[in-house]
Amino acid sequence: MLLHLQTWQEVEEYLEQNQGIIIPIGSTEQHGPTGLIGTDAICAEVIAKGVGEATGALVAPTVNIGMALHHLAFPGSISLQPTTLIQVTQDTVSSLAAAGFQRFFFINGHGGNIATLKAAFSQTYAHLANLKLPHADQVRCNVANWFMCREVYQLAKELYGEEEGSHATPSEVAVTQFVYPEAIKSAFLDKEVASGHPIYSAEDFRRHYPDGRMGSNPGLATPEHGKQLYQVAVKALSEQYLKFLDR
Amino acid sequence: MLLHLQTWQEVEEYLEQNQGIIIPIGSTEQHGPTGLIGTDAICAEVIAKGVGEATGALVAPTVNIGMALHHLAFPGSISLQPTTLIQVTQDTVSSLAAAGFQRFFFINGHGGNIATLKAAFSQTYAHLANLKLPHADQVRCNVANWFMCREVYQLAKELYGEEEGSHATPSEVAVTQFVYPEAIKSAFLDKEVASGHPIYSAEDFRRHYPDGRMGSNPGLATPEHGKQLYQVAVKALSEQYLKFLDR
Amino acid sequence: MLLHLQTWQEVEEYLEQNQGIIIPIGSTEQHGPTGLIGTDAICAEVIAKGVGEATGALVAPTVNIGMALHHLAFPGSISLQPTTLIQVTQDTVSSLAAAGFQRFFFINGHGGNIATLKAAFSQTYAHLANLKLPHADQVRCNVANWFMCREVYQLAKELYGEEEGSHATPSEVAVTQFVYPEAIKSAFLDKEVASGHPIYSAEDFRRHYPDGRMGSNPGLATPEHGKQLYQVAVKALSEQYLKFLDR
Amino acid sequence: MLLHLQTWQEVEEYLEQNQGIIIPIGSTEQHGPTGLIGTDAICAEVIAKGVGEATGALVAPTVNIGMALHHLAFPGSISLQPTTLIQVTQDTVSSLAAAGFQRFFFINGHGGNIATLKAAFSQTYAHLANLKLPHADQVRCNVANWFMCREVYQLAKELYGEEEGSHATPSEVAVTQFVYPEAIKSAFLDKEVASGHPIYSAEDFRRHYPDGRMGSNPGLATPEHGKQLYQVAVKALSEQYLKFLDR
Amino acid sequence: MLLHLQTWQEVEEYLEQNQGIIIPIGSTEQHGPTGLIGTDAICAEVIAKGVGEATGALVAPTVNIGMALHHLAFPGSISLQPTTLIQVTQDTVSSLAAAGFQRFFFINGHGGNIATLKAAFSQTYAHLANLKLPHADQVRCNVANWFMCREVYQLAKELYGEEEGSHATPSEVAVTQFVYPEAIKSAFLDKEVASGHPIYSAEDFRRHYPDGRMGSNPGLATPEHGKQLYQVAVKALSEQYLKFLDR
Amino acid sequence: MLLHLQTWQEVEEYLEQNQGIIIPIGSTEQHGPTGLIGTDAICAEVIAKGVGEATGALVAPTVNIGMALHHLAFPGSISLQPTTLIQVTQDTVSSLAAAGFQRFFFINGHGGNIATLKAAFSQTYAHLANLKLPHADQVRCNVANWFMCREVYQLAKELYGEEEGSHATPSEVAVTQFVYPEAIKSAFLDKEVASGHPIYSAEDFRRHYPDGRMGSNPGLATPEHGKQLYQVAVKALSEQYLKFLDR
Repeated sequence: MLLHLQTWQEVEEYLEQNQGIIIPIGSTEQHGPTGLIGTDAICAEVIAKGVGEATGALVAPTVNIGMALHHLAFPGSISLQPTTLIQVTQDTVSSLAAAGFQRFFFINGHGGNIATLKAAFSQTYAHLANLKLPHADQVRCNVANWFMCREVYQLAKELYGEEEGSHATPSEVAVTQFVYPEAIKSAFLDKEVASGHPIYSAEDFRRHYPDGRMGSNPGLATPEHGKQLYQVAVKALSEQYLKFLDR
Repeated sequence: MLLHLQTWQEVEEYLEQNQGIIIPIGSTEQHGPTGLIGTDAICAEVIAKGVGEATGALVAPTVNIGMALHHLAFPGSISLQPTTLIQVTQDTVSSLAAAGFQRFFFINGHGGNIATLKAAFSQTYAHLANLKLPHADQVRCNVANWFMCREVYQLAKELYGEEEGSHATPSEVAVTQFVYPEAIKSAFLDKEVASGHPIYSAEDFRRHYPDGRMGSNPGLATPEHGKQLYQVAVKALSEQYLKFLDR
Repeated sequence: MLLHLQTWQEVEEYLEQNQGIIIPIGSTEQHGPTGLIGTDAICAEVIAKGVGEATGALVAPTVNIGMALHHLAFPGSISLQPTTLIQVTQDTVSSLAAAGFQRFFFINGHGGNIATLKAAFSQTYAHLANLKLPHADQVRCNVANWFMCREVYQLAKELYGEEEGSHATPSEVAVTQFVYPEAIKSAFLDKEVASGHPIYSAEDFRRHYPDGRMGSNPGLATPEHGKQLYQVAVKALSEQYLKFLDR
Repeated sequence: MLLHLQTWQEVEEYLEQNQGIIIPIGSTEQHGPTGLIGTDAICAEVIAKGVGEATGALVAPTVNIGMALHHLAFPGSISLQPTTLIQVTQDTVSSLAAAGFQRFFFINGHGGNIATLKAAFSQTYAHLANLKLPHADQVRCNVANWFMCREVYQLAKELYGEEEGSHATPSEVAVTQFVYPEAIKSAFLDKEVASGHPIYSAEDFRRHYPDGRMGSNPGLATPEHGKQLYQVAVKALSEQYLKFLDR
Repeated sequence: MLLHLQTWQEVEEYLEQNQGIIIPIGSTEQHGPTGLIGTDAICAEVIAKGVGEATGALVAPTVNIGMALHHLAFPGSISLQPTTLIQVTQDTVSSLAAAGFQRFFFINGHGGNIATLKAAFSQTYAHLANLKLPHADQVRCNVANWFMCREVYQLAKELYGEEEGSHATPSEVAVTQFVYPEAIKSAFLDKEVASGHPIYSAEDFRRHYPDGRMGSNPGLATPEHGKQLYQVAVKALSEQYLKFLDR
Repeated sequence: MLLHLQTWQEVEEYLEQNQGIIIPIGSTEQHGPTGLIGTDAICAEVIAKGVGEATGALVAPTVNIGMALHHLAFPGSISLQPTTLIQVTQDTVSSLAAAGFQRFFFINGHGGNIATLKAAFSQTYAHLANLKLPHADQVRCNVANWFMCREVYQLAKELYGEEEGSHATPSEVAVTQFVYPEAIKSAFLDKEVASGHPIYSAEDFRRHYPDGRMGSNPGLATPEHGKQLYQVAVKALSEQYLKFLDR
């Protein structure tokens, strides 16, 4: 049930039964020579829609741009500053909380968003309390990273072992291949791929990871893997979401 | 050519030929009893994609949430504060300008975004000059409102006359019906519809526009109209975009 | 009735009868070789005082510095960033709204302020609602651009035709000549004057408009024209203000 | 020499000889039962103009609204938040410094502005250094409080002794009477007047200073005193300004 | 080597050899009925000093107040908002980076700081790049949580098993007992202690964790344990710091 | 009574009797060739602890980093921007005021903090009123500068006369020698020492004060002087604090 495809009166009815909402959040950033710039948003969106279908939850529009400052040395990458993303998150949650929503389940496709989202949640709770919003103390936010679900992680390890890596991974590339088979890319992938260097500035990142991959071999990805990963992620996150609602 | 479906290397190649990019921006807000909450984003996105196809331009992911504070008394609406949207715009343009983009053509689906976008452009030019970005003085932003193209306006007047109104209009609803025929809504639409009251606070807005429409009769919309409006808008904005590139 | 020349007790009495206030806002920016840097503030102030006299409205002190980032390549120009002007507007309206004012009629002398003021109004309404100010939902702000009144526009066209242009116009220069006849300037005005180029960065502006004029011939201005324009503007805006109060 | 009455070309010429500018800053706030709400801005402006005439300095438009949060419980008072005034100051100085100004002499009419201005100066120096503005290290700002000049203070003590007080003082009221003899107010002034309580919140201020005066008897003010005080202040500040330029 | 006990000339000499610095960061927040409000700062500070002695590193003054919004329903707790802590971190790192420091090793005593610190690091790298600081791309920040060192974690598990819990833990209380034996507290500790509830708003936190503990039994803490934990932490973090310098 | 060494339950009990708290604030900045970088924080902290012992007041942890932008050209100096320090102050006071504290007595060791703290207090009062915090109108903040107490000033003059100077003074150095006799430094101190130049930018400061001292001879400092100064300051500030509580 996509928020964008509802009327306000349908949302009003939904709220009488249910105060939960799913918010997909991705990023717009390089994903190596064969990964799509929209990888993180595409994965978050498709999985969020799947969870919405499986659970009857309302799904908000995707936050397409996240915190990707360390990727900005690669063209096509776009990033919000952390303080901007905090404000975007606070404005979004506050708008919906004022209407009666109380459970905000962010399905996240990008590791770089996690810290900022957590900071944003803290700031938002305090903001809502300051506003004396009724039920401010009932508002709960959660960031659920599809790629960190135990079941997804296991499947990725089975399929790719060490070649999964940590950015531009075959598993996320596979999900985008499943969603957009017409946009499967081929490009030279050096067998040697850098890994293990922590993330600092954008310039430092590109120096250490010259083609954008972090320890991954996305050449292993297939659309079929993508479908499997998608299904496993939807199942795992649907359970998480329902538990989150119940808490 | 969707940015989200490119690799960073493809963007690098594009930039060698072309420094323009299209950024669709909509809103997530009530559109009356039969209009979709995502109307403004849906229209901006589909038209932007059309313009991208017609002109070969790169199209960035859609900014789904805009400045809709006056709609917040209707559930399902989400708004950024103007200062947040200014920061989002500045971060977005700055990220892309650092990579070499110089022409930013925002295809906009929501009247409430216009003022804030214009303020954001001014602030961004100054920011880029402060950063001493090479070619900062070549960066140009433009907001193109699809519903204000002369040709679109004329067609809407032909089709709907005075019943076009100014929010939850049949023309924007028609475009969403063309895009999502499976999500055409029917609901009671009072023949009497408020109009003419300026926009102030959210509470005042809902008091004056109790079902969310501003002088419009979206019951007149059809998917066929939507297709026509879409085609006219794509044609008009494609010309505008190409002129903008050339300036 | 100038706010600056009242005591707080006189304001208290005024508020018992009337919750309206006029706020003149101008800019401090180049106005071509013969236009005063204070043109926009001077015009807004004198017209606001005239409207105050005609309607009995309280007139706040003039906001002398506005959003003029695009003029900063000319010495003597001063600009607030849009986010600063938003904050100034919010602080001003909030101070007065807390005391009981409800109708804020900005008489504006500078096109570059419009977008930012509109963004500021939206943000301010939401701020006042967040503060739970009594009657927050009654607060209304309006930007009235003296140079865009139909009657003013017609007179300017009669007097100057195409030579009115859009910046450093003979009509605004004429009003300053009427107010400060001792400060009428003469300087070389090239017959060729640039026009038609949109406004982007400050550097780009100066490159395209090397003497600061946009399509105008301020050499046509006379103090007598200024008096006429002043009178027409005061009459038109007085009517607008009274209607605004009544709404 | 008023900036508002110059053209940009005249400012360009001025800058070849002189990099100093005077910026009057006041406040819009209650000044007791007989004091004008604009007292601080009126005094700063008239004295700044006098200093400009005496020294040939350029005088910027008056900052009419300052930091007066503690007066907001009296109607008609308007205040910027300190962080807003810091940003206004930074934007103003940065605009002018980019054009070549290096000495910023703020003539201040309101004690409540001092702390915020000093904080703003510090932040602005660092901002200009961050921008790598040429001559950033030559930019100097100074706040000169006309009522704290030794000579003014002595004259006020001679004229009013202990009845000078510290807010809504006879000396500042006298200067406004000199400038606006047509706006001399009479109202009941209790002989008992509160004094000695430090300034905390607006509500606390009004509770302790119910008519707005702090230990003062503005009933002693006369336009003739105002003229004397004006002359003494202009003389003293002209010397200060010239020394400041030379440093 | 404590920064606070050096002269600037000694720092200048240090920088010729070494560009690393340790910054202890804690929090000021409730730690259950027997835990000190300063627990997190005390632990971070003493361990940072130990690491400084072991490695010859300069140790900055302790950031005593962190991100503890969820503890604010307990008196004595103080929190910065995340955006404030981001700004504090950016200002701190920027000050030191401008002087030549390149490696910033935050020794952290509070889980609630981690997300905000990581967001702050990202924002700071981009800020330094924007400033065009020489060697901006060499600046690296790291947050090292003493309580999450593998060796510390193992010792805590050995000593306390499941009763370690996750807030007001016996291990952190033990370290404070080792540092301040004179401030060992005794108070009633219910055997039943809440656990497992995620952290949302302050009000929600206190409702679920009424005495402030999260699954812990701080009654098990002894100063001797504290000494052991301290020693293990210093050893582990000294190694981490030296590796961080070398990278 | 140090806040850091209390439990939240002890703070709860304290608040039943007493709503006052002392907050030491210093700076981390160069203090000439022999002064410690932590001088201002060390002095503020030790004196605040003394006042806490003398009066039974609770003493918060020290704010170690203040507003020292003008010292940033000397390595080891760290500064918050004024707007950051305003936010830190507001967050700190707001946290404690929500718990019931009403009297905030900042014991300050650094002249450069004063303006920003005063601005912060004003902003904080307005913030608390906006939050509708019960007793918001009872919150009072005060900045007490130990080095400006009449008794301290007199003693410093007796001991050092004109050689006291205004930065890196023998009196503040003496207090640090009393606290940290093991960290007494000796270095070449030129007999010629700059003085009298106002404080502008960091670069300008270092140019005029090349070794960091402002007119002072810290070579005169002794630990015995430090003890005397400490005792005089504690006595004077204890009286001030008790009066502040009573007001």
